[in-house]
Amino acid sequence: MIEIITAERADWPGIWAILEPVVREGETYPLDRDLSGEAVRAYWQAADKQVFVARDEKGGVIGTYYLKPNSTGPAAHVANCGYAVRPDQRGKGVAQALCRHSLEEARRQGYRAMQYNLVVSTNTRAVRLWQHMGFAIIGTLPGAFHHPTLGYVDAYVMFQGLV
Amino acid sequence: MIEIITAERADWPGIWAILEPVVREGETYPLDRDLSGEAVRAYWQAADKQVFVARDEKGGVIGTYYLKPNSTGPAAHVANCGYAVRPDQRGKGVAQALCRHSLEEARRQGYRAMQYNLVVSTNTRAVRLWQHMGFAIIGTLPGAFHHPTLGYVDAYVMFQGLV
Repeated sequence: MIEIITAERADWPGIWAILEPVVREGETYPLDRDLSGEAVRAYWQAADKQVFVARDEKGGVIGTYYLKPNSTGPAAHVANCGYAVRPDQRGKGVAQALCRHSLEEARRQGYRAMQYNLVVSTNTRAVRLWQHMGFAIIGTLPGAFHHPTLGYVDAYVMFQGLV
Repeated sequence: MIEIITAERADWPGIWAILEPVVREGETYPLDRDLSGEAVRAYWQAADKQVFVARDEKGGVIGTYYLKPNSTGPAAHVANCGYAVRPDQRGKGVAQALCRHSLEEARRQGYRAMQYNLVVSTNTRAVRLWQHMGFAIIGTLPGAFHHPTLGYVDAYVMFQGLV
């Protein structure tokens, strides 16, 4: 049983335990690998983001995502999200549950679409999952991401209508 | 003769005279049409943006653009720009001069590519100009922009490698 709810202030240590390995790996997010916890907190909990957490039966934070408008004004009806799962919970459907929740939440809030701006092409598990969840690759950005071991790799823009 | 140089503090009134009609029209930028001058200034002169102005022979500001990293960390090598031309100077090659200058400047600063995230499809003159300047439409975002008279219209992601 996974429960997904709005994050509270007290959740940050649990969220950081999830984000720190993601940031240190440097393979999926456009964040410098040596960012401090405070810098990542400023990114993940920026003023325009709503943050959610997934909890297991014992209340431990096993995943997190943010939801925000991808742009502003006449383009603010398109949502954007970022997701992360605790390393020991990967491959267990947590990311899928987070994505499903985010799509429902975006619809509930009146967003008309959801867009991912920079899905690293080498993150094949994520690409397949987002496709499974209804997203289409609408464009390929050549060499747009500098992977720590593979060098410059492509990134995808992925999009899904919600109405 | 158009001179394009880094903007100075004293240029803001000239820049605002260019941006105000663009914002009030609401047809090209993801900005609310009723934004105040201060709000637009915070957007155009945000901390991550370098701002340039084009001047005519008399020193009047006839165009402006910003240059910034489109993303951060391992994706900060892709540049992003926004351009605007004074209404009475449209159709005279100012936008093309701004774009050419921005591409040269981005290359000079070591950017490896330039990306436009939200080119409104109905802004056909801009789309054609960016294509003429070497950009490719790498994806179409369905209904991603709410046009004041046409309703939801598509927007393009446009991209150009610089290396």
